Amino acid sequence: PTLTHVREDGSAHMVDISEKDVTARTARAQAVLRTREAVTAQLVQGALPKGDALATARIAGIMAAKRTHELVPLCHPLPLSKVTVDFDVDQPEPGEVLITAEVRTTSRTGVEMEALTAVSVAGLTLYDMIKAVDRAAVITDQQVIHKTGGQHGEWTRHD
Amino acid sequence: PTLTHVREDGSAHMVDISEKDVTARTARAQAVLRTREAVTAQLVQGALPKGDALATARIAGIMAAKRTHELVPLCHPLPLSKVTVDFDVDQPEPGEVLITAEVRTTSRTGVEMEALTAVSVAGLTLYDMIKAVDRAAVITDQQVIHKTGGQHGEWTRHD
Amino acid sequence: PTLTHVREDGSAHMVDISEKDVTARTARAQAVLRTREAVTAQLVQGALPKGDALATARIAGIMAAKRTHELVPLCHPLPLSKVTVDFDVDQPEPGEVLITAEVRTTSRTGVEMEALTAVSVAGLTLYDMIKAVDRAAVITDQQVIHKTGGQHGEWTRHD
Amino acid sequence: PTLTHVREDGSAHMVDISEKDVTARTARAQAVLRTREAVTAQLVQGALPKGDALATARIAGIMAAKRTHELVPLCHPLPLSKVTVDFDVDQPEPGEVLITAEVRTTSRTGVEMEALTAVSVAGLTLYDMIKAVDRAAVITDQQVIHKTGGQHGEWTRHD
Amino acid sequence: PTLTHVREDGSAHMVDISEKDVTARTARAQAVLRTREAVTAQLVQGALPKGDALATARIAGIMAAKRTHELVPLCHPLPLSKVTVDFDVDQPEPGEVLITAEVRTTSRTGVEMEALTAVSVAGLTLYDMIKAVDRAAVITDQQVIHKTGGQHGEWTRHD
Amino acid sequence: PTLTHVREDGSAHMVDISEKDVTARTARAQAVLRTREAVTAQLVQGALPKGDALATARIAGIMAAKRTHELVPLCHPLPLSKVTVDFDVDQPEPGEVLITAEVRTTSRTGVEMEALTAVSVAGLTLYDMIKAVDRAAVITDQQVIHKTGGQHGEWTRHD
Repeated sequence: PTLTHVREDGSAHMVDISEKDVTARTARAQAVLRTREAVTAQLVQGALPKGDALATARIAGIMAAKRTHELVPLCHPLPLSKVTVDFDVDQPEPGEVLITAEVRTTSRTGVEMEALTAVSVAGLTLYDMIKAVDRAAVITDQQVIHKTGGQHGEWTRHD
Repeated sequence: PTLTHVREDGSAHMVDISEKDVTARTARAQAVLRTREAVTAQLVQGALPKGDALATARIAGIMAAKRTHELVPLCHPLPLSKVTVDFDVDQPEPGEVLITAEVRTTSRTGVEMEALTAVSVAGLTLYDMIKAVDRAAVITDQQVIHKTGGQHGEWTRHD
Repeated sequence: PTLTHVREDGSAHMVDISEKDVTARTARAQAVLRTREAVTAQLVQGALPKGDALATARIAGIMAAKRTHELVPLCHPLPLSKVTVDFDVDQPEPGEVLITAEVRTTSRTGVEMEALTAVSVAGLTLYDMIKAVDRAAVITDQQVIHKTGGQHGEWTRHD
Repeated sequence: PTLTHVREDGSAHMVDISEKDVTARTARAQAVLRTREAVTAQLVQGALPKGDALATARIAGIMAAKRTHELVPLCHPLPLSKVTVDFDVDQPEPGEVLITAEVRTTSRTGVEMEALTAVSVAGLTLYDMIKAVDRAAVITDQQVIHKTGGQHGEWTRHD
Repeated sequence: PTLTHVREDGSAHMVDISEKDVTARTARAQAVLRTREAVTAQLVQGALPKGDALATARIAGIMAAKRTHELVPLCHPLPLSKVTVDFDVDQPEPGEVLITAEVRTTSRTGVEMEALTAVSVAGLTLYDMIKAVDRAAVITDQQVIHKTGGQHGEWTRHD
Repeated sequence: PTLTHVREDGSAHMVDISEKDVTARTARAQAVLRTREAVTAQLVQGALPKGDALATARIAGIMAAKRTHELVPLCHPLPLSKVTVDFDVDQPEPGEVLITAEVRTTSRTGVEMEALTAVSVAGLTLYDMIKAVDRAAVITDQQVIHKTGGQHGEWTRHD
């Protein structure tokens, strides 16, 4: 792609989106928490020391999506119109949790970062709640899966 | 481990740390951004559209560490005494960036979550700055590497 | 009302408002701080230990309205176009303070939560400033009084 | 009590607590959400349009406690060592929800405001989740119930 | 100008902008950090104790612009579409740093406060990074330089 | 001074203060808002369009001091034990406002940045409230005046 936003001195800046169209845009992102089957069993049973991990991580992810522009320095503040965070326990493999977030806006730029931030903070929260029983758990494969809207239109990851 | 914090109804709560000792504690976490060699070359040259990615991601990671307790619902607010975020470009493989954070506190609980949050937000920021040239980049292997201090003392990941 | 937003698994989510119309919307909320007449007298005279309670609580309420979506997990971020917070001392009864907030937006959803958050934080701030002289004070009757705009149009509380 | 903190000009200020002792302190606060029995039934069944209201409100309350000093202008930032938020549905009366928060710190001042902020934001969140079915619900009787620690020691509300 | 927003009781409020037009608006602000030539030399060489001061201050300024409405009580939250922060070292005089911010929005009110907040926090950050070598440095001449858009149109400072 | 904190690669980092002593520390900072006498008259009379400027700016400054570490990337979070913000209208010259902040902590590092941030945001807030009548107003001479505590002890600015 042409990199129209590069400044002469290479310095960081929040790029100008004022000429872009206000359109409906969506993004879906995923991440995987890799722990052990004994732990995902506790997760489902609500038997973890700090309590109900999935509900807590879902709320954390939704709230984080709304604060993306506070965390990621060059992101624009966007009026999010929908955020969901979901978990598939023992997916894609036993002992793993697949985290999926979907975000929607009607705005001048896309919400990939908001979807990624939601899965990221949901993953951090799950780790926080299982680390007493599995400090070695890993958050992995954090990526954008699908987006719609904007100048470049629909995009789906092909692996 | 004994799960002394489980509540009878399994509900989420910020566990009581008031009886734990105030001691020096450190944590180190890592993550890997997986992109392409053409992109890591642009990263090093400062030729990315939004500007200087490494400096921006470093600051984002440091600032995020300080806000961990705002993002992760059951984390305690802690007086961080040191935060560093570093990048090894084309490590562990060409076309990848190894992100490492170190956090230190003198407090009643550990800073693993702060170190993980720093690498997480640094990774999100790098992705934000390269997504115009590689939307398919992945953040992976986000994990705690080492910790010291506290009741359980030193711990090092063995893979 | 039909509950079109229920998800199959009952999990929490920020509901999709992208199909709703952008219209002018207002909300008014109230709460009552119940203390003693000796305290409302000090409030009016500016004789409380931490200083000017009404001005401080007004600013706190206005600022909190802008942060509603950070506090209430499933609220959408909205571009507020007006916020006022007012106090009627010794109303509705002597020794009480009636707190009223009005919020206006032009957006896809209403601002009842923003008006309620403003009165709530204004009330907390008043309590903070009188608690040295009346720890037993109570914040009560926090409620939405009136709203306009949106699909359901005008609504006024009838008690 | 003697009001040692009043400034000559009556202006607001964050009072000096540097000479106060660092001690263990706790506070418990309560509030009541007054709605209808049909609504508390939906609350328990998880049948509300935005999803799982109790888990969401609990997390919101815990997170808000940590941000008390950002919301209430003259509150000191405190290192909270424990926060819990609990709900008793159909208490104290059918169709009501009793919200209770407990906060603990080891610090130079008390955590009454943190406990009150937790119940306040938990109550706002419950209202947000039921307002599609009961816009007229009221949050009431928000008050400190009990505190320990500090110069004035233990205090229990007597009604 | 006519002061149409004054309330009868003179109390603070976030004024109603709902009747104003949504138009493109820009603002440029400046400030000067006054230190010594030995320090600006270290700044350019990246030899300051806390590290790369210009990149850090640039990011701090951009991030602060997005939080203007959280800091300045009566500012409206605005969807910023562009933020830049730039530095001219040894300008306007040797041993000084000229800080310039530009902000753009498409909204109902102007972004002068956002531009001023960006230069202000960029200046604070530069001071933080040089204060180990020049505690006596001063931030001065913080002012709006130029604005466009809105009811009053273009404005340029004339000194 | 010896610059013990410089990293080999010159990158930004939050320096380690864990070995520094926990001691009482204070800082005082000042800034001047330069406007016209007609405006300072309105300020004192409470006749400005957005309302009571001094009370609003005082609260804004106090609240900003508590958020210094969120704004200035390499500042450590500190438990502030006192914050005051004061105004001298028509000082040091007619048509000016002298803004003074005092901050106190018991901690491992000083509070110069907190005091500067308080005067900075108080100044921004005053400007916001007078800009309808004097857009050309300037904030100037923002500087640390005095500090106590810490390794380097007392320091007073000499001009």
